[in-house]
Amino acid sequence: MRTASPFHVYDTTLRDGAQQEGMNLSVTDKLAIAAQLDEFGVGFIEGGWPGAVPKDTDFFARAAKELTLHNAVLAAFGATRRAGTRAGDDPQVRALLDAETPVVTLVAKSDVRHVERALRTTREENLAMIRDTVAFLAGEGRRVVLDAEHFFDGYRHDPAYALAAARTAFEAGAEVVCLCDTNGGMIPTWVSQIVAEVLDAVGPTAVGRAGDDGRPVGPVLGMHAHNDSGCAVANTLAAVEAGATHVQGTVNGYGERTGNADLVAVTANLQLKLGMELVPEAGLREATRIAHAISEITNLSPFARQPYVGQSAFTHKAGLHASAIRVDPDLYQHMDPKDVGNDMRMLVSDMAGRASVELKGRELGFDLSDRKDVLARVTDRVKHDEARGYTYEAADASFELVLRDELGELPRYFETQSWRTIMETVPDGHTPADVYGPEAEAFAEATVKIMVGGERIVATGEGTGPVDALDRAVRQALTSVYPDLRRFELIDFKVRILDTDQGTDARTRVLVETADGERSWSTVGVGPNVIEAAWEAVTGAYVYGLIKAGVSPAGPSAG
Amino acid sequence: MRTASPFHVYDTTLRDGAQQEGMNLSVTDKLAIAAQLDEFGVGFIEGGWPGAVPKDTDFFARAAKELTLHNAVLAAFGATRRAGTRAGDDPQVRALLDAETPVVTLVAKSDVRHVERALRTTREENLAMIRDTVAFLAGEGRRVVLDAEHFFDGYRHDPAYALAAARTAFEAGAEVVCLCDTNGGMIPTWVSQIVAEVLDAVGPTAVGRAGDDGRPVGPVLGMHAHNDSGCAVANTLAAVEAGATHVQGTVNGYGERTGNADLVAVTANLQLKLGMELVPEAGLREATRIAHAISEITNLSPFARQPYVGQSAFTHKAGLHASAIRVDPDLYQHMDPKDVGNDMRMLVSDMAGRASVELKGRELGFDLSDRKDVLARVTDRVKHDEARGYTYEAADASFELVLRDELGELPRYFETQSWRTIMETVPDGHTPADVYGPEAEAFAEATVKIMVGGERIVATGEGTGPVDALDRAVRQALTSVYPDLRRFELIDFKVRILDTDQGTDARTRVLVETADGERSWSTVGVGPNVIEAAWEAVTGAYVYGLIKAGVSPAGPSAG
Repeated sequence: MRTASPFHVYDTTLRDGAQQEGMNLSVTDKLAIAAQLDEFGVGFIEGGWPGAVPKDTDFFARAAKELTLHNAVLAAFGATRRAGTRAGDDPQVRALLDAETPVVTLVAKSDVRHVERALRTTREENLAMIRDTVAFLAGEGRRVVLDAEHFFDGYRHDPAYALAAARTAFEAGAEVVCLCDTNGGMIPTWVSQIVAEVLDAVGPTAVGRAGDDGRPVGPVLGMHAHNDSGCAVANTLAAVEAGATHVQGTVNGYGERTGNADLVAVTANLQLKLGMELVPEAGLREATRIAHAISEITNLSPFARQPYVGQSAFTHKAGLHASAIRVDPDLYQHMDPKDVGNDMRMLVSDMAGRASVELKGRELGFDLSDRKDVLARVTDRVKHDEARGYTYEAADASFELVLRDELGELPRYFETQSWRTIMETVPDGHTPADVYGPEAEAFAEATVKIMVGGERIVATGEGTGPVDALDRAVRQALTSVYPDLRRFELIDFKVRILDTDQGTDARTRVLVETADGERSWSTVGVGPNVIEAAWEAVTGAYVYGLIKAGVSPAGPSAG
Repeated sequence: MRTASPFHVYDTTLRDGAQQEGMNLSVTDKLAIAAQLDEFGVGFIEGGWPGAVPKDTDFFARAAKELTLHNAVLAAFGATRRAGTRAGDDPQVRALLDAETPVVTLVAKSDVRHVERALRTTREENLAMIRDTVAFLAGEGRRVVLDAEHFFDGYRHDPAYALAAARTAFEAGAEVVCLCDTNGGMIPTWVSQIVAEVLDAVGPTAVGRAGDDGRPVGPVLGMHAHNDSGCAVANTLAAVEAGATHVQGTVNGYGERTGNADLVAVTANLQLKLGMELVPEAGLREATRIAHAISEITNLSPFARQPYVGQSAFTHKAGLHASAIRVDPDLYQHMDPKDVGNDMRMLVSDMAGRASVELKGRELGFDLSDRKDVLARVTDRVKHDEARGYTYEAADASFELVLRDELGELPRYFETQSWRTIMETVPDGHTPADVYGPEAEAFAEATVKIMVGGERIVATGEGTGPVDALDRAVRQALTSVYPDLRRFELIDFKVRILDTDQGTDARTRVLVETADGERSWSTVGVGPNVIEAAWEAVTGAYVYGLIKAGVSPAGPSAG
């Protein structure tokens, strides 16, 4: 199925999204993201700027061979010809043809101030550049999208010129003119009014081109929004409600500055709230997984509060509502999270009652509905622990360990007898810099004594700090018995000092995130200092990881 | 100046924002955030739910004594009376009076499905609960805001009932009815239509109450938006454009699920784009600093792409535009970042500049205007340090130490030769619980070797953890020479792991707040582990404290 919907969902993650601070995509990354975008169901994937960016030239060459698309077509992005040249002679324009994509998207100026001050050419020459380049590419059989840069700012300054740019593109054969809020400062009422005025003005210029079904195709207006005012999604909706039928955006809202319109949120709003058909239902139901997969590829941490697909997007904390939520979850969520592949989560907090513990248990796969005794004990224990500084809402894995403990289903993989850690600035005959690099000023060493499988193991580790040294010592002690530990990696480590009014008597909370290459989990530890708290969180993470790996406790110490 | 603007900017960071996953604020945190909110210039600060949440009861008690507000008034949040009781007999309602705030905000049901299924009472009783509670509190001299929960969903289901709830509140004496999109699923056109219809419908019911200037005050409608559809900011703008004159939101968009409307973005849009007067211009120009300071207090990482105040919000990557941006930056940004206290950043060549170092120096009492050499050195050093993980924006005292160092005005109070710390679980003949109380499982001990006043001092300290032990050892070593150290107390200690993708190779940043009974100051340390980072921050805090106490370095080691 190719662009089955007459509505255009146009993704620019690989081009405009890649302007995001901290993003650096390889060609392989781009191919992997394109496959995910196609699975989501976008109609167009803008792959990059061939000719201008060598990596992007490669992308189109490899995509032609390696990428099988089911929903989308590829678009190559470039600019109108240079001032004073012929479109067919401009190497940058020729590179767009060489990319051999069905669609070519051209960025062009439509704000007269940018024509004069940034492009430094005349109003007339800019229009000629649009006309020639669109006509040349359309003549070569390409579907042409014109991205009218700074359109809204330009229209507010000089509407006649902005309209002339759009009209020129349509007259020269562009299929779409996409109105860009390049600086991202628009608000919905402005967008809505301008899109309506533009549609009114360009309507009559639409040449009655024939579509696939032989019927004439009218002018398609698009919207390209940035989030500088915090309104990118809403501005896109406003444009569509005013008549635009082409939306551009990026997955996870990636992009320069505050990012582009988040294409998943735009699509979900239009499809689930306004009843339009944009992407296959099955694609939308994979949105959460796809957004997170792309975030793995880009190596940028996902934003927990991201609408629809964020980890917290359907997460409830308020204890007061927990009982009502259990009865009727629809009263407390704006749509069914399954429609975007997400889930409702309940946070177990100090305001928690048995209802939320039961819900949380169900989420983790434990049916506690007829275990009132366990529910009561777990609820009491959570309250007691949270009063001492624990926070299970950010540590699902630790909560599961508590639950298993109260159910008598917590395996005893090992038992710690004692541990010691030493850290010093300059021991005899060494400098820390020799071992740990130029910034190190101290050595850390740790020894642990652990019972595992009926045997007593003493192991020592060295590290960049005491927690790292302890971690290495424990791994040293346990890995021969539990080789799965090798796959566990500490990926995040957060420390908070509690009861700060008490100064040095404060307690320390450590949250650790651990991964095994496929999934990650969070554990919590609390203690009088960061090392004891970390010890609890890290050993908890190992226990949880071993449970999930289906490992049985070794030898006589099994419990 | 109290609520000088007739428009209400109502902050609920401390109540609804605290529903954010992972947020756990102490009373001291809440007081510190309230001071920042007041500086930003909000008119109302909702402090919490006295009676229901013990911490919040404490907050109002301490706020009355400790908090001096210049722009804002405090609001206590609670619910309408229980079904079948009298408002004056309901302990929860009485707790609202006991909080002694000028404003009380009552949450009430306005969606008939919630009345029947969640509250499990009748349509009539719910209206009576609104009427009685509002009238009781207004009769006690409180300004009453009614938060009409699930208003938009309720109105779409049964407009007459939702309107009856709003009308009842106004008739009973509520100053504001705030329409809540509790589930966050609205889009701007829906909001705009509903707000307009409600204003139309409740207009005639407005009792002509007299305002401060003696003129009658009409019904004030408010907007409380959540971001589940990605439209919280836009929905708030839509409500205001339709006639609402009270907006609720949270700093940094904190809140349950996808969060609440980001109050800074809402305010900046309304004030800078629509020309309304909401907060003092000076407050808005501090928005970036304030948003980041609050994020340090909550210990939640700031979101770089956050509109207006995010670290990336005015950051440009596009190499193609760099020269045009330098010539005419206004062409490439939607507003002047200085209006919200942010800065344009170029990613290739960081332009973090001498101007801000000079300004900051002036703020600290150093005139650097004719010290170009020092400015250059400090700017370079700050850039270099920040690339390694330091953040001077949250550590003024450390910045002053850098400045003094480059000016040759940094006293050398002492010089560390070496230190060592040992921590172990159960040493011979003791249990840690004997020494440190029932929760302790380990001993920490530290030895430092320090040169002070020409003498070499070796001192040992015991503590609840290695940082505490080191701190005690240093005090032991220095207090006889510098008795002022006795007054210094570590009051807060925050740890953040940087570059978390690198797992155990991550660097650690520690921010320490120290007080001497009169003032407090913040220092930063960065190192390969928490102990080395803490050591740098703590010793920096001592040096700064001694400087401010006017102490001269002792003996021959004076510098």
